[in-house]
Amino acid sequence: MSSLDQGSSSPLKRFQELTGQIKQYEEILGLVYWDMRTGAPRKGIAQRSEAVGALSSETFRLSTSSEMGELLEKLNEPEQLKQLGEIDRRLVEETTKEYERNRKVPPELYREYVVLTSQAESAWEEAKEKNDFPGFVPYLEKIVAINRQFIELWGVKTTPYDTLLDMYEPGLTTVELDRLFGELRARLVPLAEQIANSQHKPDTSFLEGTFDKEAQKKFSKFILNEMGYDFEAGRLDESVHPFATGLSPGDVRITTRYLPDDITSALFGTIHEGGHALYEQNINPELAGTLLCTGTSMGIHESQSRLWENMIGRSLGFWQRYYPDLQAHFPGQLDGVTVEAFYRGINVVEPSLIRIEADELTYNLHIMIRYEIEKMLFNENLDPRDLPEVWNKKYAEALGVTPATDAEGVLQDVHWSGGAFGYFPSYSLGNMYGAQMIDIAHKELPNLDQQVAAGELLPLKQWLTEQVYQYGKLQQPAEIIERISGKPLQSSYLCDYLENKYKDIYRLE
Amino acid sequence: MSSLDQGSSSPLKRFQELTGQIKQYEEILGLVYWDMRTGAPRKGIAQRSEAVGALSSETFRLSTSSEMGELLEKLNEPEQLKQLGEIDRRLVEETTKEYERNRKVPPELYREYVVLTSQAESAWEEAKEKNDFPGFVPYLEKIVAINRQFIELWGVKTTPYDTLLDMYEPGLTTVELDRLFGELRARLVPLAEQIANSQHKPDTSFLEGTFDKEAQKKFSKFILNEMGYDFEAGRLDESVHPFATGLSPGDVRITTRYLPDDITSALFGTIHEGGHALYEQNINPELAGTLLCTGTSMGIHESQSRLWENMIGRSLGFWQRYYPDLQAHFPGQLDGVTVEAFYRGINVVEPSLIRIEADELTYNLHIMIRYEIEKMLFNENLDPRDLPEVWNKKYAEALGVTPATDAEGVLQDVHWSGGAFGYFPSYSLGNMYGAQMIDIAHKELPNLDQQVAAGELLPLKQWLTEQVYQYGKLQQPAEIIERISGKPLQSSYLCDYLENKYKDIYRLE
Repeated sequence: MSSLDQGSSSPLKRFQELTGQIKQYEEILGLVYWDMRTGAPRKGIAQRSEAVGALSSETFRLSTSSEMGELLEKLNEPEQLKQLGEIDRRLVEETTKEYERNRKVPPELYREYVVLTSQAESAWEEAKEKNDFPGFVPYLEKIVAINRQFIELWGVKTTPYDTLLDMYEPGLTTVELDRLFGELRARLVPLAEQIANSQHKPDTSFLEGTFDKEAQKKFSKFILNEMGYDFEAGRLDESVHPFATGLSPGDVRITTRYLPDDITSALFGTIHEGGHALYEQNINPELAGTLLCTGTSMGIHESQSRLWENMIGRSLGFWQRYYPDLQAHFPGQLDGVTVEAFYRGINVVEPSLIRIEADELTYNLHIMIRYEIEKMLFNENLDPRDLPEVWNKKYAEALGVTPATDAEGVLQDVHWSGGAFGYFPSYSLGNMYGAQMIDIAHKELPNLDQQVAAGELLPLKQWLTEQVYQYGKLQQPAEIIERISGKPLQSSYLCDYLENKYKDIYRLE
Repeated sequence: MSSLDQGSSSPLKRFQELTGQIKQYEEILGLVYWDMRTGAPRKGIAQRSEAVGALSSETFRLSTSSEMGELLEKLNEPEQLKQLGEIDRRLVEETTKEYERNRKVPPELYREYVVLTSQAESAWEEAKEKNDFPGFVPYLEKIVAINRQFIELWGVKTTPYDTLLDMYEPGLTTVELDRLFGELRARLVPLAEQIANSQHKPDTSFLEGTFDKEAQKKFSKFILNEMGYDFEAGRLDESVHPFATGLSPGDVRITTRYLPDDITSALFGTIHEGGHALYEQNINPELAGTLLCTGTSMGIHESQSRLWENMIGRSLGFWQRYYPDLQAHFPGQLDGVTVEAFYRGINVVEPSLIRIEADELTYNLHIMIRYEIEKMLFNENLDPRDLPEVWNKKYAEALGVTPATDAEGVLQDVHWSGGAFGYFPSYSLGNMYGAQMIDIAHKELPNLDQQVAAGELLPLKQWLTEQVYQYGKLQQPAEIIERISGKPLQSSYLCDYLENKYKDIYRLE
């Protein structure tokens, strides 16, 4: 026991208490948001928002209090720091970073931003429904303007947009992302062209039809169970936009959406959110109740959702095991369809307008477009009013499609209404991290393919727990990928994986 | 505008803000409790309890802060008090009472108690399931011990138990309750005997059988709708123990329980909780967000649940209107049963073991037993370990029945696991308040019986809103009953009502 945690009033003990309290409030706020999105009565929302505002402000106040500042100053003294265990040291580091960032924001500006973004989400919903981009512009302009202010307050890293990127993927830069996306583009665009020219297009007609909702729900639960999702530490509900939320390792909730005419929405949505949930359920219990008890970055989080959704959930082996179960859940509906035909059907590649409906390959092009636009907004002062024009031009160039309306163009995603600039790259980072991890997993679990094809998914879950999940925020994204693979993040694993997969499906040379 | 609310730093304004914040935290805590009882994953409960402890403690801290003390001191100056409007004056009065009570409890003790009771509920559930009273004793002993400490800290009123009673029914004393229960006993025990000797026992065999859960759910929703429950300001879920919780007038949630072999459980449980909910949904919007926005006492709250459940929901008129609907929900199952036979069946009187399944008449005897036991616990230092023995003896004496297990005896109710000693009398108070109110309602709404028999329930809801609901905590229970009926609470209305009803059903002299 170090000298720092002697007695109830030691700085370390008080620091643990204070950060623990912040984590507890975050857990409660997480539950309130979950409730708002899964069935809270309409007429209570306005007052609930006020209550959320009050508790969020208190949480912000705690994290920027002068007490917190004094504690961090003491704990950051080199001699004190040396005495801390690994968890406490990392907690001090992470909290210091947050403290310094938050202290630079005047509380009134923070409050204005919280209220603005919570109103903007409804405004965005309405604008999307009515295809009314001009109606959303005033919100977007203010959100971008405040984010530009934040960047000034926080300090510009290399470029202004780098400051935002660092929030979601600590240490990530535009230089690095430009390189990674450049490499992806160089290999994936030609691949997409080869596919477009292939004569061997998968049949997808069997995916159309009406799929019983109760059967979809039952199958979703069955698959989550197979993945090792612990229903005693979570639950599955419905919401318009599927999400996962880790309130604590003992309470990680998933939502999905059952579309009567599209079986793939709930199926892959559930596996995707299930991947996020496995991460949060399997963080080392020693981190429970601390601010380190969550995924280390959005990119690593998306690596888990997208690895389970695509690399496992859209693999042939997976369906060799589970396709008969799926058929049994929808008697008669998939009778004439072989497992190979099903596999090819769920992996069809087609340039499309909507990111969340995109296939595994072109998905990365959707992300690239958003990345380029966000860079323009913050590094080139692009006027938000010009977004539709820029958006449509980029879609035409990269995917050869043009939205007929802004609703299916620039208004399609919720992210910007919440001010989440810098988040989108996480999805492609997730694809790259995931491919790099699964490559190593195949080496360390030589029977992985056979295991998946036999419905033995737990060895992979166990391996990912050991390599990724258990650490929570204890290790940075770059540390994790280097520890696992001996290398920094590379684009080649994802490109190799996609080329292999699609050469087979589309019978390419 | 008084001189007190000038400027943003006026004591009144700050007082409104501070009490508003307390109310907001209470709303959030209410949601967390609702979630814990309707499906929060088991493995997250321990950590959630800690988070609840943290937020409850903060709420407690706010309500006992020196800032609050200073504000109350200023606002309670006679000259200042005179200038306040009705709402603010009552808010100051209520907050002062809470402040003075809470200031006497050391924060550490409070926190310990919150964590203890939130763990004790799960422990009680398990003990009840396993019929393991000894497993629950350690919790009960601690809860009773801390309540004894609270009483010492708050100050003993006449007797220690009076101090607890006052929390649920302000101003109520054991002297008053001894008198009221004495009067009830004098008239209801002979009535129960006459009924036991009657040759005209209702047939209840048709209530046995298997009732489809989905149909029960549908009918529950239908009846709530008929009562004027607003589903845009609430929702109906399931829980082991039905409850209603008013988070705000725009979010008042109900739970019920569907038993496959007992149609009456969900039916009357839903109407009961619906009565609570009508109260909370119809509080004057001017009180929203203030600490006065809730029922004025547990007794008045129970008057609404039990009035709707029994005086309306178990009346012949009600079923003349709704019985055909009920029959239609369960095709064939009630074919040979007339509405009169159904009415008599759901009003059968029989001494039983379980309070929540008791008939309208003997229900009061169940309450009397709990009242006597609670008095023994706090006024005679009864050892909690002796509860099963005392419980079983009293049941044998008062009702002539003896529980075969503690699960159907002393472990049946959740209340004590939450430390709610002094709550039980509210149920019988509710029966008495309700009978007194409905007597006046019949005078002021001369067509009430015909309206109920025609399914016009909204005039009664409207009358109760005007007389009771709108006021929230703005008026005290005694003020309300005196304003409505011109008299203090009396036992005679309930006795008259029960005698009339059962003389008819059992064809008594």
